[in-house]
Amino acid sequence: MDFCRGLASLGIEILSSGGTAALLRDNGIAAVEVSDYTGFPEMMGGRIKTLHPKIHGGILGRRGIDEPVMAQHGISAIDLVVVNLYPFEQTVARPDCALADAIENIDIGGPAMIRAAAKNHESVGVVVDPADYPRVLEELRAQDGGLSDETRFTLAIKSFRHTAAYDSAIAAYLGKVEGSEHFPDPLVIRFRKVQGMRYGENPHQKAAFYLDPGAPGGTIATAKQLQGKELSYNNIADADAALECVKTFTDSPACVIVKHANPCGVAQGNTLLEAYDRAYATDPTSAFGGIIAFNQTLDGQTAQAIIERQFVEVIVAPHLSEEALQVFGGKPNVRVMASGSWPPSAPAPEWDFKRVSGGLLVQDRDLGIVGAEDLRIVTRRAPTEDEIADLLFAWKVVKYVKSNAIVYCKNRQTVGIGAGQMSRVYSARIAAIKAADQGLVIQGSVMASDAYFPFRDGVDSAAEAGVTAVIQPGGSIRDAEVIQAADEHGMAMVFTGMRHFRH
Amino acid sequence: MDFCRGLASLGIEILSSGGTAALLRDNGIAAVEVSDYTGFPEMMGGRIKTLHPKIHGGILGRRGIDEPVMAQHGISAIDLVVVNLYPFEQTVARPDCALADAIENIDIGGPAMIRAAAKNHESVGVVVDPADYPRVLEELRAQDGGLSDETRFTLAIKSFRHTAAYDSAIAAYLGKVEGSEHFPDPLVIRFRKVQGMRYGENPHQKAAFYLDPGAPGGTIATAKQLQGKELSYNNIADADAALECVKTFTDSPACVIVKHANPCGVAQGNTLLEAYDRAYATDPTSAFGGIIAFNQTLDGQTAQAIIERQFVEVIVAPHLSEEALQVFGGKPNVRVMASGSWPPSAPAPEWDFKRVSGGLLVQDRDLGIVGAEDLRIVTRRAPTEDEIADLLFAWKVVKYVKSNAIVYCKNRQTVGIGAGQMSRVYSARIAAIKAADQGLVIQGSVMASDAYFPFRDGVDSAAEAGVTAVIQPGGSIRDAEVIQAADEHGMAMVFTGMRHFRH
Repeated sequence: MDFCRGLASLGIEILSSGGTAALLRDNGIAAVEVSDYTGFPEMMGGRIKTLHPKIHGGILGRRGIDEPVMAQHGISAIDLVVVNLYPFEQTVARPDCALADAIENIDIGGPAMIRAAAKNHESVGVVVDPADYPRVLEELRAQDGGLSDETRFTLAIKSFRHTAAYDSAIAAYLGKVEGSEHFPDPLVIRFRKVQGMRYGENPHQKAAFYLDPGAPGGTIATAKQLQGKELSYNNIADADAALECVKTFTDSPACVIVKHANPCGVAQGNTLLEAYDRAYATDPTSAFGGIIAFNQTLDGQTAQAIIERQFVEVIVAPHLSEEALQVFGGKPNVRVMASGSWPPSAPAPEWDFKRVSGGLLVQDRDLGIVGAEDLRIVTRRAPTEDEIADLLFAWKVVKYVKSNAIVYCKNRQTVGIGAGQMSRVYSARIAAIKAADQGLVIQGSVMASDAYFPFRDGVDSAAEAGVTAVIQPGGSIRDAEVIQAADEHGMAMVFTGMRHFRH
Repeated sequence: MDFCRGLASLGIEILSSGGTAALLRDNGIAAVEVSDYTGFPEMMGGRIKTLHPKIHGGILGRRGIDEPVMAQHGISAIDLVVVNLYPFEQTVARPDCALADAIENIDIGGPAMIRAAAKNHESVGVVVDPADYPRVLEELRAQDGGLSDETRFTLAIKSFRHTAAYDSAIAAYLGKVEGSEHFPDPLVIRFRKVQGMRYGENPHQKAAFYLDPGAPGGTIATAKQLQGKELSYNNIADADAALECVKTFTDSPACVIVKHANPCGVAQGNTLLEAYDRAYATDPTSAFGGIIAFNQTLDGQTAQAIIERQFVEVIVAPHLSEEALQVFGGKPNVRVMASGSWPPSAPAPEWDFKRVSGGLLVQDRDLGIVGAEDLRIVTRRAPTEDEIADLLFAWKVVKYVKSNAIVYCKNRQTVGIGAGQMSRVYSARIAAIKAADQGLVIQGSVMASDAYFPFRDGVDSAAEAGVTAVIQPGGSIRDAEVIQAADEHGMAMVFTGMRHFRH
């Protein structure tokens, strides 16, 4: 209303459709009704209002060329178009939104006017975002009712982004209704900007962070930063890995420490403090400067233990106690995030992207999970109950370790993590070396492998190290040989039938 | 034309703008001109043709409700909308395209009709893609001039995707003209589908591959598959890493072998065969089932050496000789790709994406390169000419190894690659272990580190292993200590001032 009042005060004549015109008049602002101007009534429940050549000719007319034809047909030049589109996204975000409501909230006349004005930005201004009202008004005032070429061009770009995002939202919604959203052509993806960043993965790369408009709660994207320095690109990527991993532990307090995109320590405990102590113990060197995630409200005692013991980049938990916040208050640089609670059910399906030069790989996010009931025991010896608990724990961890991934676990604690190797044998060796370096005992632990063992050597060397049980997808042409190796060593082995490559 | 003839033969009355109507009449197909129907002339060089309530009322009118108002205003129902939008993307793809040409090729009337028809898909069909003409015509024939609910709904979704992609292309073009394309809000990205895939990173994930409409040549996305099994998700990701890495070697034949997203062997040679032999020698275990990329036309002798020696998933080179193709012809399962030549200059800027739950990290692709002139010698001893050649070679490789990355090289051959560790010390240890396992001599080699050494221990242990020169970004608060360590060992060390994290 202030904007219209400002326009009117500059002597700008306002043309508007019926409802808006009435509202303006009630506020003492004069406005010409579109239907009076076109001589054509609004009809069809508002579907037809502005789609008229007297409107679009007024917007699209080429100044300096089309004046004669405009005069001949009674078309007045329209110099500024201001449109708030029907709120399609807000409408379909409502849980009770019916298809008919959604359809009626697809704006047709608005985008047509926006696009016409943006095309003719050489002469016409277009405003699609109320946030731009003050600066547009200011410029109109300063420049005697006109906008600069630069402003009109910038507004035009913003307008096409706006209509592109609008139609992309409509296509995404209708595609979900139809169940056809799997990999359409063209793929048009829209995200809302959360913040620019100081830089990307490296200082010479510019970067920004975006939010998926359909993002569920309890994610790093929707988490609230409670204190600390600005989040970096790598902080967000690592915090995501840590949070998503820790969310998979639902039965007791758990802690995940991530460094360079890999978990370097994961543990459960009777308390969060115990979980943190045990996760830290896996690899204190790597935990230095790491990202720490918890699956329960972070308490003051655990917060205190962290800051007394180590340098930490980011701490994330669903909630934080008053005591924990007080503890961190003394370390104002530490980034502390509250993700909020996450739904107890399976997370919403999302697309995962992998950029390649000139293209994009799109896939369903890896939401595969296995429970005890999914395990196929393939060895003569069945795993004990305790081994099964450790095997399932190890399987949750190995899913978040970069491939090839080998994880040794004991009593719901990682004792060795072998990440990111080009051959599985080296991942196993690294896991063992790291365990030995920390004085952690592999004897009596279980081993998880993110993909099958192509040869028996992996199982042989695991047995040598003292591993008693193995979890892996199975599916190698040499499975029989691998199973025989396990049997020879008296090991228990289970197949998940599901691989978890992560690169 | 066949489509219109088909429509006419079904007794469907065709309404079209002037140019099309004339063309139809020349081909003996009757058509009503829009301007005759609306009573309003086409004007403004074609900018105003269909933006009229008699057109849009005919499309948007709610069947069963709006007939009286339609009759009152002489509006006839329009049941099918067929539009080919002005070719905006093709226009701006022309190297000589002026801004005014681009602007004139922004279609206003077409998208308005498409969107109106798609909104009213309950009653109206909409066709935006000539590829759909045959099946639409067939359905119209089979169903007595009507389309099924399902078809109209599917066409509507396709239409909104089409207009979203169209406006996204316009925004991207105008943004580039303005120089403002850095991280807009909203971000709307469009890709064209190349192919669906059997599955994604793992068999339980669905996946598809998309092409960036602005993709330059010489990339994996635009490469041509000459033979072999269908490319998998992981094949494409790994082939991209291999090809992008090998492209950085411009001065002599080079070969890069990638496994699980990491180079496991990189070398230059006097011939491609020598380069391949030396790259393979770094880590034959990992090279098994790897992706092999070359920077020059692949010859028959090298092709023969590969298939005699190893199992290979994908081979990619700019071109392949007749002899090479013949050799691979005997191994029809091997995937062989010709990328075509790449521009000799720096690659085009692109955005890199990292998906996180609920959000998206967007950054400039890492296009940073350093030459000999960029190196800052920080030790008392300057590197020899040969060391400089190896240091620059190692630096090109380490950029493509997952962080933390340590690479040992000698005579333009990798002798040890330590990838993907949560602490730099372990990356160095792995690189040394792997070199020793292959009987490769680190003595006299150089070392590259993708980020600075936080402590002197990395340099101390490298010296112990026989490394004579080091390349790293520098920038640690303990640089002085690290430089002193190098000086004590008589090593040469250079700083690049540029980090290459890659996760």
